[in-house]
Amino acid sequence: MNNIKCYGSSEILKKLEDKNPLFLCVIATTKTSNIPGITGAGATPELTEYTPAADLELVMYGTPKCLPEIPKTIVGDDVAPTPAVITKACLEMADIPLIVVDAGAGVKPDMPYIKLGDNPGEDVRTGNAVPNARELFEKGVMLGKTLSKITDHLVIGESTPAGTTTALGVLNALGYDARMKVSGSMPENPHDLKLQVVKEGLKAAGYDGDDIVEDALRAVEIVGDPMIPVVAGIVIGSSVPVTLAGGTQMTAVCSVIKGINPDFDFSKICIATTIFVAEDETSDINYISRQIGDITIFALDPEFEKSSVSGLKSYLNGSVKEGVGAGGAMMVTSLKGIDMDDIRGKIEDLCKEIF
Amino acid sequence: MNNIKCYGSSEILKKLEDKNPLFLCVIATTKTSNIPGITGAGATPELTEYTPAADLELVMYGTPKCLPEIPKTIVGDDVAPTPAVITKACLEMADIPLIVVDAGAGVKPDMPYIKLGDNPGEDVRTGNAVPNARELFEKGVMLGKTLSKITDHLVIGESTPAGTTTALGVLNALGYDARMKVSGSMPENPHDLKLQVVKEGLKAAGYDGDDIVEDALRAVEIVGDPMIPVVAGIVIGSSVPVTLAGGTQMTAVCSVIKGINPDFDFSKICIATTIFVAEDETSDINYISRQIGDITIFALDPEFEKSSVSGLKSYLNGSVKEGVGAGGAMMVTSLKGIDMDDIRGKIEDLCKEIF
Repeated sequence: MNNIKCYGSSEILKKLEDKNPLFLCVIATTKTSNIPGITGAGATPELTEYTPAADLELVMYGTPKCLPEIPKTIVGDDVAPTPAVITKACLEMADIPLIVVDAGAGVKPDMPYIKLGDNPGEDVRTGNAVPNARELFEKGVMLGKTLSKITDHLVIGESTPAGTTTALGVLNALGYDARMKVSGSMPENPHDLKLQVVKEGLKAAGYDGDDIVEDALRAVEIVGDPMIPVVAGIVIGSSVPVTLAGGTQMTAVCSVIKGINPDFDFSKICIATTIFVAEDETSDINYISRQIGDITIFALDPEFEKSSVSGLKSYLNGSVKEGVGAGGAMMVTSLKGIDMDDIRGKIEDLCKEIF
Repeated sequence: MNNIKCYGSSEILKKLEDKNPLFLCVIATTKTSNIPGITGAGATPELTEYTPAADLELVMYGTPKCLPEIPKTIVGDDVAPTPAVITKACLEMADIPLIVVDAGAGVKPDMPYIKLGDNPGEDVRTGNAVPNARELFEKGVMLGKTLSKITDHLVIGESTPAGTTTALGVLNALGYDARMKVSGSMPENPHDLKLQVVKEGLKAAGYDGDDIVEDALRAVEIVGDPMIPVVAGIVIGSSVPVTLAGGTQMTAVCSVIKGINPDFDFSKICIATTIFVAEDETSDINYISRQIGDITIFALDPEFEKSSVSGLKSYLNGSVKEGVGAGGAMMVTSLKGIDMDDIRGKIEDLCKEIF
């Protein structure tokens, strides 16, 4: 396969080649995304509540139903088509089934979905961001067990506005060095703001300075988001290989998995993301993941520099990088033998159709 | 296979032998079940709202979480263990995955489930029992398409208190002769009451006497329940064989399928139920189904007359007959080569453990 960079052992890729993946997208929103300047995943902080539902509706129907406008990641005057378009192109080309899992989205997508949580997360500054983290984890485990019986490869994407802030929160609480290392949805990554709100949350929960939270799910309760315990639960419940389709947020999931099961065998899973995350100069997914374990990371490159659609070129300057499992969707589609040029072609067609 | 009676062509059974089924249970409640004397699926009319959630929790956890007491079908002094025990025994023995689909249950089960509807149905006497029938059908179609990609045999059970009344309503509205023919959860089948409330609903919607409702989903809107359009949608959306795991309620589903697609090929599906429905003297599933099309019906016999658990013997006098896909669960478990004596043994073990 071309257009795929491997950080770690590419062994697992061979095992995944003849599988029939099931693509999950776990969605959640939090009040954290209402903090001005923290995320670009929505035209205004308030509209970030709609982003996951609108993205998944775009994947399913080609148009969002919950919003009058197509979701775009907007940074200044720069408009980039949501990564949901990449995911849509891939899943359609490879005929891969998609099931949405609601971990706690403020606005629900207009389609059948698996209800696992319900309520959105709170603002991390409260120090009580995900009060039901344990329940979400346990239901994730149940779901992982069930889905393992009907697929031989689980691919799990996510859509969680401000999710890199909550990822930073969990990583930081568990003692990993993720300062300046989590990704973001804008060219200028507001690292200071992210760290400040996370510290505020930890302080509110009674953790000061460099105190480490020993219990991984407690860390999620304090400064996480609902997506993290759900995906950690699905992975731990699963008996088939899992691809975590996302960027630095998925390292937070891995940190929770390791916190719950220190002997977890990370060779059973991998992270698949986009080249825009892997080569992002404002973050470092590999630096974070190496602290947790031997986690293989694949980075998919759709070569948008070759694209005739100007919106897609804004991915090249970091205006948008990943989301809705775009990297993992490209990986499983490539595994089905579909060429990246064809994938990019389909993405371009969809862009012209939709936007 | 022993212990299975076939009404129709047994051809489909051979095709299903080497499949890996996915078992869905579609749940719904309606205000119709609050009509005193209409159903035995709950200790009081009000408690029928809890029955589907409690039943599925029993299958999943061995105990209901939403109710302090185990759901039992109670008729007079007679107590029979819920058919959920049969389903639980079968799915565990054959390691068949179960996914719950909420079409509109008043009380939600405490587990991950697919959210398709939300609101319970109204009282059929309003003539506006399922205002969102069309939406439920369309989402059912979507779900059927998705699930067809991850299984090669869909088995669909249901839990819908007073569901034989709403089945009668739909069959009647669509011009089928189902008077005195739908099944029920009690030894005395209150046919007159069922017909009276259905007629009242049709009248409220402007249909008098023997008027036929031409549009199948309109019939559901007037006098159906939320389960019916969801299951009809899944069947129409599906590209793999489907086993409808239920009694006369599933004939109402078939009538809606035929109403929507008069050319539907019923050889792709079958109904699997219990011998207690098939040989029920107060109803006639074959008489109803023959009016709709060439629908093969399988009836599974757990031979409870051989049982040492007295509660199970109350199935023999009609106190309870079917539910939670019990008949279909026995069929797919038998297809996995598991003997009915062993299935009954497991059911007995569970009865001793649970009750």
